[in-house]
Amino acid sequence: MTRPAIAVTMGDPAGVGPEICLKALADPRVGQVCAPVIVGSAAVLAKASQQFGLPMPAHILSPGDFTGHFDSPAPAIIDLANITSDQFTPGETGAACGKAAAEYITFAAEGAMAGAFDAITTAPISKKAMNEAGVAFPGHTEMLASLTGSGPPVMMLHSPRVTVALVTTHIALRDVPGAIDRAGIVHVVRQTHDAMTRILGREPRLAVLALNCHGGEDGLFGDEEQSVIVPAIEECRADGLDVAGPLPPDSSFSEAALERYDAHICMYHDQGLTPFKALSFKEGVNVTLGISIIRTSVGHGAAFDIAWQGEADPSSLIVALALAAKMV
Amino acid sequence: MTRPAIAVTMGDPAGVGPEICLKALADPRVGQVCAPVIVGSAAVLAKASQQFGLPMPAHILSPGDFTGHFDSPAPAIIDLANITSDQFTPGETGAACGKAAAEYITFAAEGAMAGAFDAITTAPISKKAMNEAGVAFPGHTEMLASLTGSGPPVMMLHSPRVTVALVTTHIALRDVPGAIDRAGIVHVVRQTHDAMTRILGREPRLAVLALNCHGGEDGLFGDEEQSVIVPAIEECRADGLDVAGPLPPDSSFSEAALERYDAHICMYHDQGLTPFKALSFKEGVNVTLGISIIRTSVGHGAAFDIAWQGEADPSSLIVALALAAKMV
Repeated sequence: MTRPAIAVTMGDPAGVGPEICLKALADPRVGQVCAPVIVGSAAVLAKASQQFGLPMPAHILSPGDFTGHFDSPAPAIIDLANITSDQFTPGETGAACGKAAAEYITFAAEGAMAGAFDAITTAPISKKAMNEAGVAFPGHTEMLASLTGSGPPVMMLHSPRVTVALVTTHIALRDVPGAIDRAGIVHVVRQTHDAMTRILGREPRLAVLALNCHGGEDGLFGDEEQSVIVPAIEECRADGLDVAGPLPPDSSFSEAALERYDAHICMYHDQGLTPFKALSFKEGVNVTLGISIIRTSVGHGAAFDIAWQGEADPSSLIVALALAAKMV
Repeated sequence: MTRPAIAVTMGDPAGVGPEICLKALADPRVGQVCAPVIVGSAAVLAKASQQFGLPMPAHILSPGDFTGHFDSPAPAIIDLANITSDQFTPGETGAACGKAAAEYITFAAEGAMAGAFDAITTAPISKKAMNEAGVAFPGHTEMLASLTGSGPPVMMLHSPRVTVALVTTHIALRDVPGAIDRAGIVHVVRQTHDAMTRILGREPRLAVLALNCHGGEDGLFGDEEQSVIVPAIEECRADGLDVAGPLPPDSSFSEAALERYDAHICMYHDQGLTPFKALSFKEGVNVTLGISIIRTSVGHGAAFDIAWQGEADPSSLIVALALAAKMV
């Protein structure tokens, strides 16, 4: 069987991306499940290779060097040659890095849409550097939704222990109650159902969380459960999905609940990410659902504080690659 | 040295309260640190004792049977005789249960104020049952603040691994942003500082969380960090308190953060309780600060789904009693 081809975007050159990309490609588990290719800068990767004694991928290709579906018997790089190691300072944001990182994402996403790659896995970028470079998207998710012409995208965080999908993402807490609606919740439930079915190979058991503490206690403090969340759950159940809820958020991540449910649909960013990170700090993978390509990502940021010091942990990138391969 | 006298309110008769009260009083660790007395219904406790083969406390007293400071060489009950076992259905809410539970709290709090008890520890109630009984308080905390004439009360959840204190409690999520203010945050920080100093025997290291995800990203989504939270933190630091923040909520409960801080001050119920319960489900103790009596509570609810089945775990009540004894 052919291994799925996965494009790994190198992320912000000044962050931990180059180092974890090389470390991940050197890990034998990665080559067992996919044919990985780093979309990045060969010059920057060569510097990280020398500095930390990490193996450099054998095949360095230019964007025009292959046609059709990508394949390579060994780890490879597609060299966009858009930044060199003297054009940035490790650990510092800069417009040149933001621009380069955006180009890796664009190349990988367009390649995936054209059938060159079966999935993409992204190393971390700096939102600030992207902003300095004039990139009009606050992050990967929004940029990929635009590039692929799909939408609305759904952010899911996955680990073996806990999976959360978000109904709203980067908005002020005061805007959350007005931003959740029945159609939006149903969309996230369906996308989560489809992704978890691929990942688990069976029908997933889903839980939808309440918005208010204690689920609003029957309307005593907050009524979004009755007006929005319960109707959304009923619509999903009518479609045959196994959906519990609305669950009181505070007890939703107990050991018993984690065993009972395969994924939690959360109404806002911190409702899902705070328990997720408390329970799965290192093994977390970010998955973008609802777009026309398969995309996973590391669960951490560009980590400028430890960038280019040789100490970055590639675990999250390795599990992100394995998850992408599983979802193909 | 005399052991501190602690009144244990029996909680909602239809919940797990009667069972965990009997189990806790039968645990030798409890008698070593305090002289406990259940404030409840002897008839209900006798039924639980028979049904689950648990020892019934030796001394059954009427409210008028003692004066001054309570003392008893063996576990005891103060029998308010306000409900019998045929007046409720195990696992179901009812006005009779809500009324009875409220009376246990009132008796224990008034006894503590009068010097009969050194502290009170409460078994779980049903807010719904209290509401059905026409009790005008959404929970223990609000009721105790009213009974003791103190305030505003502060809800703190404590376990050996993580401690959270809440700036707002049982309100709708949509009302949270408008309910946090500088004075309120400072009050919670000070109360948490004082309680943790008692518990740890040293100056605690405190963390204050942001309201918005990512701390609002410099005002990009939400500005309560700049307008309210940062000024509150600065006021506390000017008082010499060791306070970090505002922390991005989602990464606040990582292993590193849990080691770095002794307590987290959280802006709303689920921001604190969701990670707390994920990390400390069984050992959690609820402590009410800012009132004139010492009060601890189990960290879980009345658990109607497993009530009166003999499977309820008294661990949380046992550590709640031990913590109350430590705080006397």
